[in-house]
Amino acid sequence: MMRRDRLFLATTLTAIFTADLYFILLPKLRSMGRGSRQFCLCGPNNLTLPGQEGLATPPLSNWTSESPLVGAITDPTDGGSKLDRLFSHPLYNIQTPVLGPEERLLQAEQLMEYYRRKVEAAAISNITVTEHEVTFDPNASWLKFHLGINRYALYSRDDPTIPQLLKDMEIMTVVSADYTQDEKALKGSCDCTQVVKPSGHHLKLALKMRNFAKAMFKPMRQERDDETPEDFFYFIDFQRHNAEIAAFHLDRILDFRRVPPVAGRLVNITREVLLVTHNEDLRSVFFTSPANNTCFFAKCLYVCKTEYAVCGGPDLLEGSLSAYLPGLSIAPRISIPNPWIRSYTFNGREEWEVNPFYCDTIKQMYPYNSGNRLLNIIDMSIFDFLIGNMDRHHYEIFTKFGDEGFLLHLDNARGFGKHSQDELSILAPLSQCCMIKRSTLLRLQLLAQPGFRLSDVMRESLEGDPLQPILTEPHLLALDRRLQKILKVIQRCVRRLGENEVITKDFVKATARPQTT
Amino acid sequence: MMRRDRLFLATTLTAIFTADLYFILLPKLRSMGRGSRQFCLCGPNNLTLPGQEGLATPPLSNWTSESPLVGAITDPTDGGSKLDRLFSHPLYNIQTPVLGPEERLLQAEQLMEYYRRKVEAAAISNITVTEHEVTFDPNASWLKFHLGINRYALYSRDDPTIPQLLKDMEIMTVVSADYTQDEKALKGSCDCTQVVKPSGHHLKLALKMRNFAKAMFKPMRQERDDETPEDFFYFIDFQRHNAEIAAFHLDRILDFRRVPPVAGRLVNITREVLLVTHNEDLRSVFFTSPANNTCFFAKCLYVCKTEYAVCGGPDLLEGSLSAYLPGLSIAPRISIPNPWIRSYTFNGREEWEVNPFYCDTIKQMYPYNSGNRLLNIIDMSIFDFLIGNMDRHHYEIFTKFGDEGFLLHLDNARGFGKHSQDELSILAPLSQCCMIKRSTLLRLQLLAQPGFRLSDVMRESLEGDPLQPILTEPHLLALDRRLQKILKVIQRCVRRLGENEVITKDFVKATARPQTT
Repeated sequence: MMRRDRLFLATTLTAIFTADLYFILLPKLRSMGRGSRQFCLCGPNNLTLPGQEGLATPPLSNWTSESPLVGAITDPTDGGSKLDRLFSHPLYNIQTPVLGPEERLLQAEQLMEYYRRKVEAAAISNITVTEHEVTFDPNASWLKFHLGINRYALYSRDDPTIPQLLKDMEIMTVVSADYTQDEKALKGSCDCTQVVKPSGHHLKLALKMRNFAKAMFKPMRQERDDETPEDFFYFIDFQRHNAEIAAFHLDRILDFRRVPPVAGRLVNITREVLLVTHNEDLRSVFFTSPANNTCFFAKCLYVCKTEYAVCGGPDLLEGSLSAYLPGLSIAPRISIPNPWIRSYTFNGREEWEVNPFYCDTIKQMYPYNSGNRLLNIIDMSIFDFLIGNMDRHHYEIFTKFGDEGFLLHLDNARGFGKHSQDELSILAPLSQCCMIKRSTLLRLQLLAQPGFRLSDVMRESLEGDPLQPILTEPHLLALDRRLQKILKVIQRCVRRLGENEVITKDFVKATARPQTT
Repeated sequence: MMRRDRLFLATTLTAIFTADLYFILLPKLRSMGRGSRQFCLCGPNNLTLPGQEGLATPPLSNWTSESPLVGAITDPTDGGSKLDRLFSHPLYNIQTPVLGPEERLLQAEQLMEYYRRKVEAAAISNITVTEHEVTFDPNASWLKFHLGINRYALYSRDDPTIPQLLKDMEIMTVVSADYTQDEKALKGSCDCTQVVKPSGHHLKLALKMRNFAKAMFKPMRQERDDETPEDFFYFIDFQRHNAEIAAFHLDRILDFRRVPPVAGRLVNITREVLLVTHNEDLRSVFFTSPANNTCFFAKCLYVCKTEYAVCGGPDLLEGSLSAYLPGLSIAPRISIPNPWIRSYTFNGREEWEVNPFYCDTIKQMYPYNSGNRLLNIIDMSIFDFLIGNMDRHHYEIFTKFGDEGFLLHLDNARGFGKHSQDELSILAPLSQCCMIKRSTLLRLQLLAQPGFRLSDVMRESLEGDPLQPILTEPHLLALDRRLQKILKVIQRCVRRLGENEVITKDFVKATARPQTT
């Protein structure tokens, strides 16, 4: 146990030192030796943090100017894949330690047994009535994805399971469709306790594949270049299937890996939903439109929301398929209100919106008074600011990993609504607490460089989705602009409080914990 | 009594003879004398009805080729106002007889007394609490409009009251605002007995002016060039304020005069609605949007339709103002289901949609078995086909004028949704019954001529509205195309059944009736 941790600690420190050397010390030496701007890493927007002398780290022997990274910077427009270069960067190659059983979410035997029982139950139930028989496949990519979830992230950086799972979601045969559990909990009634409760739900569906893979289907509601009207509150905004897809890719590029895999798919809503569902309620919301397209709509107890209907053309409809996480019975999660939750009323103001010292209160409250939780919230706010998601009212964590567990970034479909607006209030956790993980900051700085420009790696990453283009150019370019704004907020914090206060050596903290368990 | 009727009969017959001569006999003589196409009145789409020899009427002495009408046809693009020329045409100058008291909807004394009592009641109620005091104005244009309503139409062709009322609605001070009576009847609950019940109501409001003029305000919901999506059913389509305005102008151009005057207006929804309403429910649906605009939304008992909110910029919002008809207590109306009503369900089919002999059944049923009622329904279907309104589930008539009364064409906001689609099913009453009033047909033929082209006179008429442009060019041009389709349907009927069966001499019928009362 100790040895593995030490190895991890050493690897992590090496990576940090390498990055520090590369981003901070080397440019300084260069600019001192040869003049000023010529070797500035970030061009006119050089966001290298000021006053970092005290943090400069010793150079490592294997870090030379011949590394592919330096080539990429001196000629950022050269050929080859920026995304590959990003994922080859030392910051994306910090070795994770060999995981002990307690650090994995699920044990293989336990999951297999659970899966076997599910298949058996399905075989004797009416599910076999459908023409597609369910199968037991111990090598299914969704099983491997579930088995790979650990205390650090939902998946490992180079896990071949993830591209396989994406591929599978795009083509696997759908054998049944139903409302999701949370939709069923509403039992057709619209929750109007708050005047502004979003409507139009009941349009996300759970699709089950032959090998029991399950995915949440969110149908396309608007065109790629539709913008959220300026008078819309975030809580009534449409859910966008392409935002769900893009958020997964961005989360992976930020190396958070807290969003379950999402793939686009053209779903035949007649064959893959209407004809395979056993839910009479779901069947009843299907209809044929005047243009002879198959459509379905959201239904609440007292409302008939045909205006919210989505229609195929005539049966095919774009949508996002998000891989399901393991069921709550074998991998319980808890949902916790975001301390920076919005009011969800027309005029209400939450405390964080009016109290500039709100973070001081939060810092003293459990669970934000120790460990990484607050830093994780700040990571999440950076992610949400980049995608423009104002609707992060709750976050979820796996109970197994306790308070130190990572935050799941689920439900990102309200992102990417307005490319022209940068909603700085989403960054409140960062700007009010003035804290950030060093690892996050280093990756943000890397993605601000021309050789790894965030919009470029996102564009490249999204090209792999069958529904591409996923984001319009203005949305991609907004990512670069927002990234600069994040870095400026951090810069201001460092100027005000100093680097030691602002930048937290998160790797050390994370690896130190297993010693106590 | 007899003399007046004879005068009217003579005038009417003169007008019909003139039109017959002009449209049918003259072209035939010309084409016989000089060749074929050269003098064809309608160009390649000559819609002169075939086999009209038996109906040809003797020429009138005062009808010469020097008339402005002929000039307009030989040079349809010459200067001057086509609309003025249209309204100077003999077909638009059939003299109406002097009206007896029983032929007017209201008696002056009765209405003045009613008005005086209303003003007095307001003066002692809390309405005077507002800063704007209500006034009694016996010369108010709305009063004159109400007094002018008679058994033939809502207003006379050259009544100066109508332009004055339009002007007044555009500028009069609003002293109170409230939900309309039919909205209040719903008491906040959405009627979901039918799954497809339109939502988004509660957005039309009754505005009261200082002199007690009342207008129904329908706010702008969509841009001029927004098209109804092809998958939308007619019953969930938005209501369009510009359709309401355009329908009034079209109805006047068709010489029906069955739509109450409608004017566009930029309404300050803060000052002219929120601050002057006494209705707490109405006040409660106002809010300020994220873009700092004042908005209000539709509210049902169990639904919170913020998605349907309309917003000012920041307070000003376009809308249509339709003049109120006299209150039901002094001028009762009944609402009668349209025999060609649609099913208002996803899959339902009404009998008229499946039974080609539906009209034969209707013709034998009261009140469609005698008089003008069926012809009036056919007029209405022509009007609805031109505007593309599929939502004419009911029509209203003033009870005072009995079964021979004209049909009110109220609530036209679902017209002008799709310029590219001509919904021929709306014409079912015409195509199934194969009947039309001669007066209607003659006017349609006139409007199909270059010198009086429907799109041109509509464009000109709509230019008088402060919210112009009211219709986009494609919508204006669609009117011409649809007019041709109506004429083709009539042509087919005449070919099949002969002119005597199809074209009804409505003027004679209309003037004959007073003799029996």
